[in-house]
Amino acid sequence: MIITKYPQKSDWKNLVQRPTLEKQNLKSLIAEVFDNVSKNGDEALRFYSKKFDSAEIADFRVSRNEIETVKSLISNDLKKAIQQAKSNIEIFHASQKEPINKIETTSGVTCWRESRGIEKVGIYIPSGTAPLFSTVLMLAIPAKLAGCKEIILCSPPNEKGEINPTILYVAELCGVTEIFKVGGSQAIAAMTFGTETISQVYKIFGPGNQFVTTAKEMATEFGVAIDMPAGPSEVLVIADEQAIPAFCAADLLSQAEHGADSQVVFISDNQKFFEETLNELKSQLQNLPRKDLAEKAIENSQFILVENLSEAFEISNLYAPEHLILAIENSEDWTSKIANAGSVFLGNYSCESAGDYASGTNHTLPTNSFSRSYSGVSLDSFLKKITFQNITKQGIQKLGKTIEIMAEAEGLFAHKNAVTLRLNQINQNN
Amino acid sequence: MIITKYPQKSDWKNLVQRPTLEKQNLKSLIAEVFDNVSKNGDEALRFYSKKFDSAEIADFRVSRNEIETVKSLISNDLKKAIQQAKSNIEIFHASQKEPINKIETTSGVTCWRESRGIEKVGIYIPSGTAPLFSTVLMLAIPAKLAGCKEIILCSPPNEKGEINPTILYVAELCGVTEIFKVGGSQAIAAMTFGTETISQVYKIFGPGNQFVTTAKEMATEFGVAIDMPAGPSEVLVIADEQAIPAFCAADLLSQAEHGADSQVVFISDNQKFFEETLNELKSQLQNLPRKDLAEKAIENSQFILVENLSEAFEISNLYAPEHLILAIENSEDWTSKIANAGSVFLGNYSCESAGDYASGTNHTLPTNSFSRSYSGVSLDSFLKKITFQNITKQGIQKLGKTIEIMAEAEGLFAHKNAVTLRLNQINQNN
Repeated sequence: MIITKYPQKSDWKNLVQRPTLEKQNLKSLIAEVFDNVSKNGDEALRFYSKKFDSAEIADFRVSRNEIETVKSLISNDLKKAIQQAKSNIEIFHASQKEPINKIETTSGVTCWRESRGIEKVGIYIPSGTAPLFSTVLMLAIPAKLAGCKEIILCSPPNEKGEINPTILYVAELCGVTEIFKVGGSQAIAAMTFGTETISQVYKIFGPGNQFVTTAKEMATEFGVAIDMPAGPSEVLVIADEQAIPAFCAADLLSQAEHGADSQVVFISDNQKFFEETLNELKSQLQNLPRKDLAEKAIENSQFILVENLSEAFEISNLYAPEHLILAIENSEDWTSKIANAGSVFLGNYSCESAGDYASGTNHTLPTNSFSRSYSGVSLDSFLKKITFQNITKQGIQKLGKTIEIMAEAEGLFAHKNAVTLRLNQINQNN
Repeated sequence: MIITKYPQKSDWKNLVQRPTLEKQNLKSLIAEVFDNVSKNGDEALRFYSKKFDSAEIADFRVSRNEIETVKSLISNDLKKAIQQAKSNIEIFHASQKEPINKIETTSGVTCWRESRGIEKVGIYIPSGTAPLFSTVLMLAIPAKLAGCKEIILCSPPNEKGEINPTILYVAELCGVTEIFKVGGSQAIAAMTFGTETISQVYKIFGPGNQFVTTAKEMATEFGVAIDMPAGPSEVLVIADEQAIPAFCAADLLSQAEHGADSQVVFISDNQKFFEETLNELKSQLQNLPRKDLAEKAIENSQFILVENLSEAFEISNLYAPEHLILAIENSEDWTSKIANAGSVFLGNYSCESAGDYASGTNHTLPTNSFSRSYSGVSLDSFLKKITFQNITKQGIQKLGKTIEIMAEAEGLFAHKNAVTLRLNQINQNN
């Protein structure tokens, strides 16, 4: 715990400095995987699945039979919970659809945008310490709503060659078109180049370890888009005296349990409440199954006591958190102070885990200060917006001279000529 | 000219193959520039300005005085033209503002998005064969509308240390906050790291040569976002018998004159019209000032005669053009056939140069088949959309169990606990 009381403004920038990640240089290793998969397809995938996942995979494609079988393995309570989360995520992401809005910018010049789903998208779901079926909901639901035609999912198998059943269940429920038992950088390479079994996609989504992250970056060099750059998960909590120490401590810990490199920042303007929250945090920490991870994350985290809430918001904007919790009175009145954040949770009952699972917002969000320039995943992430224009004879008459003058000033005479020919034809026919 | 008549479907993919760009490996050179600029700031910029632009620059910042001086150098006709273009671009991009739409996904669970302008953005405007002041309009106008606070612009100076006056005029007109006389990869490095004179930015926009493009890619490794990957400009024209050969030829040439590597694809279902357009093209080509560039581009370009318009759209979607012109009857009825394109021009009077300059749509568009996964620049490119949620006591009671079950199924007990504590408190107080 790094506790700072009433820091000077000149120190704020240092306080919100993220620890430099020791980014291993994995590029040459991943480049080898990419080269092998691009040349040898499924055979290379088999080689790496054995090497990295100790799994011998005959057919990477999950069969209809396997999907049917898992349905009986999921409890009814979990199915009901997934259904409520799915419904909320659908409602919120469907509300992001943009109606077509035709704008006449000049008489006879009509411009608009139409959305099209990206035809082929790939979702990567890691296995590891937690089976992130919630991320399947967060990525497959907007992909389906966007109208993506092929939605493929890759997830690493266990040593028996199986994918976590809840991941399979949710993928099927949300309309994933094909599921493949392959993980790591080899899965990203497969979706980048395509293999005999796995389709090439146009955009890859989803979290992953350093191998997967480096592979996604490499995929962009081969013309495949990715959702966003990845870093460890983060929360920043701003709380005042009306907040509840137990709730704040629980929210900080729910972030910390993600991993030892999780980032937690706590800012308050009230000393008594500040101390109470620290005590609550220490006591709640003791009972967590993932105590070791959370404890390490908390060790490196910032607890800052400030003079007033305005300072708190300035520090938060400097940090640009992935998750921002405002446990303050009349929290909604303060939102205009927020310049940089991924997703914001207002008041004492909007806990981060609501947004992580079930309220409807997306949990794939910009980390590592990328909320300064990136939005989280939304329906838009699975769409392209194509601009259209329809210019009538009257329209080009109104606009033609302007285009001619500008094209000539840029020295682009063929651009000018395309207009001049049209204006001449219209004048001749009048 | 590569002319293909009635190709088999199996050949389409080859027809739309873009020539492999000989991407020089500039990475080590650019890495050196980045390293030098990050360490030595303005001094490094001075070194590279002298080396690459033969310009000795004392102060990179364009002064108020220089900006005032250029105003008298721009003709009134050009000022009026720029004003009409600006007005149309403003109208269309302002129409892209998203109203706040609060959605109650479950009773007591309210979710919405709010937009915030990216606080600091950088615009790069090349000089070279054409002074692209139109690109200043296309980038500075949406930046200003988005509410970006710092909008800086870098453009290479000539040997006298001056930037093109129209670029300065338009930058000032559109609300660019500071203009710097620096170009090439050193300008991108300056905006990535900041120097004594030039601010660090969060996102960099704008076209450029291979040095600039490679530098923008490198900027992303240092946490700076960029508008999109860049490639040579392209147009695909689909035309039927009602189209006008002179217009189609002029549109193809207005693309071709951009550079020898410009991509032009022409598809028609009518043989007579097809031949007439080829003849028109050869004759118009003779009179162009940039004939040499256009001729080289046309040499490598595809002219395809197809059986019917449905085939034309299938080929176009495979190619995924930056610009798509539909010079066909009832063109608006065909738009649902378009899966991949950057910007679409409908009918005989919607020439590409209208969109390049003045109709209102943006001309910064995805090339090199990136329209499969990327949109062109829009207001959104200068914004982040932050999600918000406000959950009441009633809301967490309705949603709590779902979150608890899902968190437990993922093995994340601190996530569960954040909800359980709240539910317990509510139950105790009831």
